[in-house]
Amino acid sequence: MRALITGGGGFVGQHLCDHLLRCGDEVVSLGLGSQNERPGVTTVAVDIQDFDAVERAVRETEPHCIYHLAAISFVPSCEKNFLQALQVNVGGTFHLVKAATSLTDMPKFVMISSGEVHAGTTAAELPLTEHTPPAPTNAYSTTKVMAETVVLTAARTAGLPYVIMRPFNHLGPGQDDRFMASSFAAQLIQIKHHKKPPVLEVGDLTAERNFTDVRDIVRAYRRAAEQGSGTYLVGSETTKMVSEVLDELIRLNGVLVEKKTDSARLRGHERSRVALKPQFTRVKELGWLPEIQLSTTLADMLAWWDARI
Amino acid sequence: MRALITGGGGFVGQHLCDHLLRCGDEVVSLGLGSQNERPGVTTVAVDIQDFDAVERAVRETEPHCIYHLAAISFVPSCEKNFLQALQVNVGGTFHLVKAATSLTDMPKFVMISSGEVHAGTTAAELPLTEHTPPAPTNAYSTTKVMAETVVLTAARTAGLPYVIMRPFNHLGPGQDDRFMASSFAAQLIQIKHHKKPPVLEVGDLTAERNFTDVRDIVRAYRRAAEQGSGTYLVGSETTKMVSEVLDELIRLNGVLVEKKTDSARLRGHERSRVALKPQFTRVKELGWLPEIQLSTTLADMLAWWDARI
Repeated sequence: MRALITGGGGFVGQHLCDHLLRCGDEVVSLGLGSQNERPGVTTVAVDIQDFDAVERAVRETEPHCIYHLAAISFVPSCEKNFLQALQVNVGGTFHLVKAATSLTDMPKFVMISSGEVHAGTTAAELPLTEHTPPAPTNAYSTTKVMAETVVLTAARTAGLPYVIMRPFNHLGPGQDDRFMASSFAAQLIQIKHHKKPPVLEVGDLTAERNFTDVRDIVRAYRRAAEQGSGTYLVGSETTKMVSEVLDELIRLNGVLVEKKTDSARLRGHERSRVALKPQFTRVKELGWLPEIQLSTTLADMLAWWDARI
Repeated sequence: MRALITGGGGFVGQHLCDHLLRCGDEVVSLGLGSQNERPGVTTVAVDIQDFDAVERAVRETEPHCIYHLAAISFVPSCEKNFLQALQVNVGGTFHLVKAATSLTDMPKFVMISSGEVHAGTTAAELPLTEHTPPAPTNAYSTTKVMAETVVLTAARTAGLPYVIMRPFNHLGPGQDDRFMASSFAAQLIQIKHHKKPPVLEVGDLTAERNFTDVRDIVRAYRRAAEQGSGTYLVGSETTKMVSEVLDELIRLNGVLVEKKTDSARLRGHERSRVALKPQFTRVKELGWLPEIQLSTTLADMLAWWDARI
């Protein structure tokens, strides 16, 4: 399969590139910056906000599928500069979709959305399935809903084959330490190497999330590209409190620490949200199941930071 | 009531300003350009893409309600420059909503969306009500769905009081002749004054639409601002074929013409769409009914062009 990927230099994109290459796919990565360069991957320097460049790259690649991951994913960045988030997250999707529908053999469009689009789902709307209407609660998840709208419109009007993937929390080596679990792992490794006092700054530890290894998640993306259609909630049914994840990281790291709440890490709307317990029936029908144990994921995250700090 | 309005210089905005003034409201119009200036209306020169300016104007006005009409509404413009449509139609909404939620006494936010968000609704989804999921089919209606998403997110997270209005086709004096019925009227008046041969360029005449006078539509907006909540389909239950509207215009104009199909006026996705027959139950519960007969609307449109050609 010839795959075109955007955001291939990001946390998830790098793992997806690795997985596609292992599967024997040809991989063309669209994006700016050296982080997009990866052995075995053809990189095309394209700004997703430039339609002509996107169209040229898509026409020259003639991909069988497009994995669209490129997005500004850090919530505060989206809140602060919403117009930019619109341009990149929504406009970029529009450009890719428009280029895809201009091909005679339209590629399968794999839109990587987010489970965050359901963050505002109320208890009355549960159980959470692919039929539950999105209920975004911040500027980032709002742009993801909008990007889904772009894909659905192209499917409706031009017959674009697509899947929309809504992954829930995913973890793994290489994640930016602006994200919670990776921030914990990075701090713990710093503490282990005496580069930081044994005090860990934490946010809301009582929140419940379902955590999945990023390497499992990207397998679901390729599976859906091959066989899927429509929308998929993607994740693991095992729900953990953030505190359990942290305690496991501390145990694996083998160094005692004190936990200290940092109010800057408490996001207003997330605290009160209901435990969603999403139903992953559809993605399982593709024959996909998460395989990596949480403790393995967390150990790999610590090892990744250990090699870098 | 102190009302803040965006897009007050546009076709609908001008009629809304007139109606609000007649009702005794104080009207502050946000926008650039001399078309926003209107006797009795306070104009503030603000580009909706400039958040700081929008916030300042909203804070200084402290409106009881905000009528948000400003948008790039011409479909081909949105298709051609989607990033600009995003900035204005979606980013502009985000800026206004953010400014509105920053006020202690949050104004009622009247989001003027469009019945076009249902253009892709299938026969299986009928009857069309406010519960029917949006199904946009072009770049313009896609941005309207996105703007609705912005409003709904603010309602969910910040408690913004809102109504979303989805008006169906509306007509009246002052409409841009890029829109069908107004184009017919303008051409007919040109023919009447021998400024054009008696040949009328038309698009798809078989399409069925429900047409409502813009002056009725804006009454619904104010009614909803006062008493409404949630989403409203707005329009008249009388469905007409475009050909009937045209024939009535020709009859009123009193000059025989030949009709000639102009392929540039045929929009691909509109031709095959189902007759939606929307149910206007919710807006009627506000005590609103369209009052102006179609023949009156069409006569007024001809008179408007007659005064200008």
